[in-house]
Amino acid sequence: MQFEGEKKHETLKQEDEQQRRYDSTSFREERDTFGPIQVPSDKLWGAQTQRSLQNFDIGGDRERVPEPIIRAFGVLKKCAAKVNMEYGLDPTIGEAIMEAAQEVAEGKLNEHFPLVVWQTGSGTQTNMNANEVIANRTAEILGHKRGEKIVHPNDHVNRSQSSNDTFPTVMHIAVATEITSRLIPSLKMLHGTLESKSLEFKDIVKIGRTHTQDATPLTLGQEFGGYATQVKYGLHRVACTLPYIYQLAQGGTAVGTGLNTKKGFDVKIAAAIAEETNLPFVTAENKFEAPAAHDACVETSGSLNTIATSLMKIANDIRLLGSGPRCGLGELSLPDLEAGKVNPTQCEAMTMVCTQVMGNHVAVTIGGSNGHFELNVFKPVIASALLHSIRLLADASASFEKNCVRGIEANRERISRLLHESPMLVTSLNPKIGYDNAAAVAKRAHKEGCTLKVAAMKLGVLTSEAFDTLVVPEKMIGPSD
Amino acid sequence: MQFEGEKKHETLKQEDEQQRRYDSTSFREERDTFGPIQVPSDKLWGAQTQRSLQNFDIGGDRERVPEPIIRAFGVLKKCAAKVNMEYGLDPTIGEAIMEAAQEVAEGKLNEHFPLVVWQTGSGTQTNMNANEVIANRTAEILGHKRGEKIVHPNDHVNRSQSSNDTFPTVMHIAVATEITSRLIPSLKMLHGTLESKSLEFKDIVKIGRTHTQDATPLTLGQEFGGYATQVKYGLHRVACTLPYIYQLAQGGTAVGTGLNTKKGFDVKIAAAIAEETNLPFVTAENKFEAPAAHDACVETSGSLNTIATSLMKIANDIRLLGSGPRCGLGELSLPDLEAGKVNPTQCEAMTMVCTQVMGNHVAVTIGGSNGHFELNVFKPVIASALLHSIRLLADASASFEKNCVRGIEANRERISRLLHESPMLVTSLNPKIGYDNAAAVAKRAHKEGCTLKVAAMKLGVLTSEAFDTLVVPEKMIGPSD
Amino acid sequence: MQFEGEKKHETLKQEDEQQRRYDSTSFREERDTFGPIQVPSDKLWGAQTQRSLQNFDIGGDRERVPEPIIRAFGVLKKCAAKVNMEYGLDPTIGEAIMEAAQEVAEGKLNEHFPLVVWQTGSGTQTNMNANEVIANRTAEILGHKRGEKIVHPNDHVNRSQSSNDTFPTVMHIAVATEITSRLIPSLKMLHGTLESKSLEFKDIVKIGRTHTQDATPLTLGQEFGGYATQVKYGLHRVACTLPYIYQLAQGGTAVGTGLNTKKGFDVKIAAAIAEETNLPFVTAENKFEAPAAHDACVETSGSLNTIATSLMKIANDIRLLGSGPRCGLGELSLPDLEAGKVNPTQCEAMTMVCTQVMGNHVAVTIGGSNGHFELNVFKPVIASALLHSIRLLADASASFEKNCVRGIEANRERISRLLHESPMLVTSLNPKIGYDNAAAVAKRAHKEGCTLKVAAMKLGVLTSEAFDTLVVPEKMIGPSD
Amino acid sequence: MQFEGEKKHETLKQEDEQQRRYDSTSFREERDTFGPIQVPSDKLWGAQTQRSLQNFDIGGDRERVPEPIIRAFGVLKKCAAKVNMEYGLDPTIGEAIMEAAQEVAEGKLNEHFPLVVWQTGSGTQTNMNANEVIANRTAEILGHKRGEKIVHPNDHVNRSQSSNDTFPTVMHIAVATEITSRLIPSLKMLHGTLESKSLEFKDIVKIGRTHTQDATPLTLGQEFGGYATQVKYGLHRVACTLPYIYQLAQGGTAVGTGLNTKKGFDVKIAAAIAEETNLPFVTAENKFEAPAAHDACVETSGSLNTIATSLMKIANDIRLLGSGPRCGLGELSLPDLEAGKVNPTQCEAMTMVCTQVMGNHVAVTIGGSNGHFELNVFKPVIASALLHSIRLLADASASFEKNCVRGIEANRERISRLLHESPMLVTSLNPKIGYDNAAAVAKRAHKEGCTLKVAAMKLGVLTSEAFDTLVVPEKMIGPSD
Repeated sequence: MQFEGEKKHETLKQEDEQQRRYDSTSFREERDTFGPIQVPSDKLWGAQTQRSLQNFDIGGDRERVPEPIIRAFGVLKKCAAKVNMEYGLDPTIGEAIMEAAQEVAEGKLNEHFPLVVWQTGSGTQTNMNANEVIANRTAEILGHKRGEKIVHPNDHVNRSQSSNDTFPTVMHIAVATEITSRLIPSLKMLHGTLESKSLEFKDIVKIGRTHTQDATPLTLGQEFGGYATQVKYGLHRVACTLPYIYQLAQGGTAVGTGLNTKKGFDVKIAAAIAEETNLPFVTAENKFEAPAAHDACVETSGSLNTIATSLMKIANDIRLLGSGPRCGLGELSLPDLEAGKVNPTQCEAMTMVCTQVMGNHVAVTIGGSNGHFELNVFKPVIASALLHSIRLLADASASFEKNCVRGIEANRERISRLLHESPMLVTSLNPKIGYDNAAAVAKRAHKEGCTLKVAAMKLGVLTSEAFDTLVVPEKMIGPSD
Repeated sequence: MQFEGEKKHETLKQEDEQQRRYDSTSFREERDTFGPIQVPSDKLWGAQTQRSLQNFDIGGDRERVPEPIIRAFGVLKKCAAKVNMEYGLDPTIGEAIMEAAQEVAEGKLNEHFPLVVWQTGSGTQTNMNANEVIANRTAEILGHKRGEKIVHPNDHVNRSQSSNDTFPTVMHIAVATEITSRLIPSLKMLHGTLESKSLEFKDIVKIGRTHTQDATPLTLGQEFGGYATQVKYGLHRVACTLPYIYQLAQGGTAVGTGLNTKKGFDVKIAAAIAEETNLPFVTAENKFEAPAAHDACVETSGSLNTIATSLMKIANDIRLLGSGPRCGLGELSLPDLEAGKVNPTQCEAMTMVCTQVMGNHVAVTIGGSNGHFELNVFKPVIASALLHSIRLLADASASFEKNCVRGIEANRERISRLLHESPMLVTSLNPKIGYDNAAAVAKRAHKEGCTLKVAAMKLGVLTSEAFDTLVVPEKMIGPSD
Repeated sequence: MQFEGEKKHETLKQEDEQQRRYDSTSFREERDTFGPIQVPSDKLWGAQTQRSLQNFDIGGDRERVPEPIIRAFGVLKKCAAKVNMEYGLDPTIGEAIMEAAQEVAEGKLNEHFPLVVWQTGSGTQTNMNANEVIANRTAEILGHKRGEKIVHPNDHVNRSQSSNDTFPTVMHIAVATEITSRLIPSLKMLHGTLESKSLEFKDIVKIGRTHTQDATPLTLGQEFGGYATQVKYGLHRVACTLPYIYQLAQGGTAVGTGLNTKKGFDVKIAAAIAEETNLPFVTAENKFEAPAAHDACVETSGSLNTIATSLMKIANDIRLLGSGPRCGLGELSLPDLEAGKVNPTQCEAMTMVCTQVMGNHVAVTIGGSNGHFELNVFKPVIASALLHSIRLLADASASFEKNCVRGIEANRERISRLLHESPMLVTSLNPKIGYDNAAAVAKRAHKEGCTLKVAAMKLGVLTSEAFDTLVVPEKMIGPSD
Repeated sequence: MQFEGEKKHETLKQEDEQQRRYDSTSFREERDTFGPIQVPSDKLWGAQTQRSLQNFDIGGDRERVPEPIIRAFGVLKKCAAKVNMEYGLDPTIGEAIMEAAQEVAEGKLNEHFPLVVWQTGSGTQTNMNANEVIANRTAEILGHKRGEKIVHPNDHVNRSQSSNDTFPTVMHIAVATEITSRLIPSLKMLHGTLESKSLEFKDIVKIGRTHTQDATPLTLGQEFGGYATQVKYGLHRVACTLPYIYQLAQGGTAVGTGLNTKKGFDVKIAAAIAEETNLPFVTAENKFEAPAAHDACVETSGSLNTIATSLMKIANDIRLLGSGPRCGLGELSLPDLEAGKVNPTQCEAMTMVCTQVMGNHVAVTIGGSNGHFELNVFKPVIASALLHSIRLLADASASFEKNCVRGIEANRERISRLLHESPMLVTSLNPKIGYDNAAAVAKRAHKEGCTLKVAAMKLGVLTSEAFDTLVVPEKMIGPSD
């Protein structure tokens, strides 16, 4: 079988990722049960991290495990050390682990977490990466050299833990943190600005559009009020999914039984994490469901999918209402941020983000549905896709608010002109002359290119005075008394 | 351009749908503003329905607007007549409309609703179908003939309404009804049976599996407890989305302003619908968001997507645990309902249903994101896909519960044999001899095909007695004191 | 746990499907290895069909296995009997089976196929339904009574076959038939009409729009030519997936080995099916891939997904170009098929269909990815979703062509007015005065609401004459010499 | 409205991306029609890039426009300069542009492309980024300073081009290059190894599994042959989509008309790109379809989706066949690459990749369906998601081949033991004793836990000798003569 495009394209071929990872000049030996392995001297990771790096050369550097997961590992390992000291961990080691873990939590050791998302589906290798980095850093804090194994990655840092409960735990810590510290503030800001615009535009009567066709009037304020409501509900929707995210798997260890932990460990560590993060984490009600399924993440992704649906609609409306300047609808002026013509580029960025969020949701769903027995092994892709969606929605909402919505202005003159040209003001005649007569008036006006008034008079269904009394756009924006 | 398969295949070609729709032998004339049109005499529909039937010949009879939508139109039109009488509708006509609408609500007039989902995106044609059928049926109730227009579809039946608020309203009535009367009861039954099984199996210690590989033990009861928890949370998830579904668009009319209604109409009709259905419907907080977006439906579909994720996992586990009879895992016996070998057919039906629900969710999402201005015109597909998912999940859950889960038996002997063969009992040694030593024992046992005990003794890390004291599966199913 | 909506809603509760299926008044006894069972006397099906009916009460009548599958079973069983006679099947029985199977192929026995999609994932029950119906009908043809088992469903009708090769085979027969006899003709018709419109509109110069903003001109014919090209490529895309669909699994029997068939059976039956259908079916190159995966269906669904993408774009453009009548773009007039205002309802039906096709594609993908070992058990959902998509796209394309595209007219006056108002004609100045100067002219015109010409003169970059020479829309619709 | 998690989490808050982008110590002034702006002195980009950087602070550095797009811009701009010289571009400038562009094509200037995917939907800002970087670099090559505008980004580097034709062009260049130089070689390697395994295992008869239940036998070689066929077809599927990818939009400029280009430019530049890349690029048949739709990308993504479906199935089978070591199926031994137990981690990475590819496909589809008029403004997300999928599938296939498939060994002893325990060998009796009798034998054996032979003898349907003659697994792996 011969394939057309199979030849090598040397000039275009990208640098080998593997190569770049080995550009260190000196190495030290680390070992695990599998044997010895060379690790770059300037890196804190150990043997298992190094093996993963070599075995999973997939996607390159931009596929690294997302930073919020790494930071959450810092939080978790710090809290684990704290609780383990209550259960007998040597306080000298425990305190030093807490110090090292705090550095991870603050993102200071990010460069020591080189592994990609596409590794083992339990995230074991990133858990070991965290254990190894913290063990080596702890050794340094205690005055030893990295690699000396004064502090053991498993026996000390991972004590009373398993990848199968730590990774689900950091997924929840990272998701909750990103939602509460990034997404909700951005959406609130956007909501507030949409509400302000709704107020600002409350007296601007404009033509409504249904089926993209001219319809009865409403105010521009009412239109923006609809958008504000969508975002408000979105805030509520994502907040409603947090209670399950606040449930932590920690304490279930390998299969959910809590083997190799002491009674109470689960409750204590959830409390420690809650205190550390200032978020209401609790221990999971059922430790078997927690690592075996990630329904909570699928649900949360579903709320982001709904928010993406809302924002897609809002951004689409704004770009169409702002279309023109002369040959579009032209009701809105969007801020002019770039050279050349004023394109609705913030709307475009937003709708592209929504598109990716919808795609990521399918990935989260498929990953979430494919767990087997005691462990779902799609953890890294679920975490990665979900955190990606949160970050994109948060940042795009902030950008859209700041660079677009905040500066939207109504083109009052154009809005008014369109309103008074519309044949659909006829709807206000329905209760007076009946639906069939009103439809006939509209049809006549359309066919003859004349005004509704003239058409009504020609058809003999209304006098000029009666028409003027009945057709008042400002009276068409609400129910009658 | 010539296409390979373009020839006609007459023998396989299906009957022309159009033809079948005209197999009536007699017709009457109905008319609308567009002119006269022939309608089958034995049908209650009118001109606009007939036009849609001819203009949208898409998909055939199985694509008809789902029955719950038709019934919900019965509920709505009954309540509208009731409230309209408070606002001046002639009581003779009003009462008769209520009677006719009640027949629609009970499904007695289903054959008079021939339109397919693939029509106008506002559902206008089905609203008119309801108006026409009820108008003609009301005329009959009042002693007139169908087609006489004694009762006007728009002026009487559709009074104070627009397709743009009725269709979103019936979508919510139908979805809420189907969820509360079908889905929730089925899921509760399934949840109860999974809980019973969890209790029944609480003393059966078995091998756990992570990465599909042998892991530390748990009880079969714990495993089923995880499943029960997933379904319990699913029940909560879908219930959490109902408050937005309980918000009704009715009263917003064409663009959300409520033009052509009287003040208070919206609140009264929501109350009437709540009373009629015994569900807590209220008028929508924002009448612009309601017809312009269907975020509430996207959110509800998202909860079904999460439930599908859960049920996919559960059904997959059960089929794999029941695989065999001799060459699979063989831990469970599933009920034997068919001739031939005992296949996990209920699991298969369930997982296929979950697959379609995930697909429908994407359809609902795409439809939901594509609204423009004052109206989302993907209403029928959103309603159809969402109701499809509800019905499938409800029925499949009931079938799975009755024909599979209820009859599952544990193969105790096989479970016990597998448990004691497993090398992963080694994990209970971790806290005693350290992770590295324990890993070495496991590796040795695996390589030599010997038991863990022999391996531990050969490596000199434990005596026989120590091993027996430490490795007790029954003690491995929870944290230690 | 108590759920809000859990009460029963008797008035709305739909008739029990199960009930309706038993509205027969008399029954006969049929049996299988599982024992005896009552079957309605007026139905041709047997024991296994009856069991499935009772065990899979999911979704009601509209979820029945799609008719093209049933018809394809007729084709297959007819061909199997024909080939089996070559291998020793009693010709009296063989000929009668062919006659009975032909009735199935023609859709005459549809009412005897009551099973739903949501059954066993191999489609075994529908294969048995076909075997039972044909066996009983064959017995009748031979002068016996249904239920007498003169002709055995398995030993005669299913001879040399297994559900695991028949169901994949009928999937491919049904998909190929529906694509070649429905979809391709409809798309060709649509393509032809779009091409005609492209020709009809070839001299109408109009404003282009990029980012929904005014851009440089093109002709309306060029715009429709783009649409025509999309549909032409779509035709090619779906045709390109047919070669894998033309590969038939038949002859692989249970696991792909062909156990219980004779050598050559696979080739002969593919040839017989090819002759019967007049389509170029061949036996599958690899009989293990064929039942274990349905990549060919996933690929074909992918081509429909691409076509849906194209049609969504085209229908969206047409509705927006036809928006108005006064407050939209108003460049096109769409045919007026309904009472009331002229809404782009055919565009709406089309875009809703595209939405469902995209959702079904996800279902097909998920089902296709979840096969295990020698058999993918998502066959009925894959077949159902794929055939649904084909039918919807075919019918919607036909409806869109006939009721919309064919009647589109250009609003030449409006198009011309918009064109000459546009500031983007400035682009034609770029090569003459440079990009920066041209941008400055556009900016000035926009800010002052003046024409480009006035702005250019004010800025002193061009004289009036030079402007008129440079800015000629009719010269802007192609590259220069 | 108050949200639970709304407090700030300072310790976890990530560094402000914006901040990091300004860590330069010195700046120079660049300007565009919008005015002057400060740009870091050590960067080659100009004013428009700088504005985008500030206006689209979305997602951080890992969201940068993918490298293959940047490199493709290098190729395009080099070829554009070459062709423009034929049309009058000053050769001194033209040659220097070619030199600068070559550096971009080789990835040497990657750090000067800081923009993220989430920008304007036409990719205009990245086109300008390329124009600015190349203009400044060209100036340097010609002995001037960056920022001097000796070479103009628009008038020289972007000559005869528009973002609306360059971005679609680089999308196609990048996709074709990545598919032919990365994906196809990796898949070919995987295909070859699967074929080798199929040959290696051709004599190992094993139990088949359908519905995850024991079925009739096949060889392990046949099973791997099915996998190899899937990958072979996948190679063909993706190759089949390349012809549309080889069509380039270049020459259509802003709306497809080719305004501001000379006749023949389109053909010449496609030829230049073909020569430069050694891939058979041609100018697009229709220049309006090309920028307005991205059906070609949707189609290609569909082929990746099908490949992901195949690889998901293969990786799932391998992990389940390798499950154990003692309590699973245990037919395969997978290579042991990590410390601790041998988990199927390469299968996990692969199935996670497939999951993301399926999600990305939905994103590409949604983006592809949302174009308006002359321009689809979801270009960057379509390009990004599609290139992401290509890279992930390519790398994961390579990793899976090297670290898993290549080292798979068959556990012959276990396979043989399972085979001979299976009751499904009974199927070989069907043609001899009929389906009903054979089913009865299987049922008896299962109920009594005895062998098939004993059951057959007890039921009196076969003698011991007859059984041994009939039931020979090695004879059950193909059709009979």
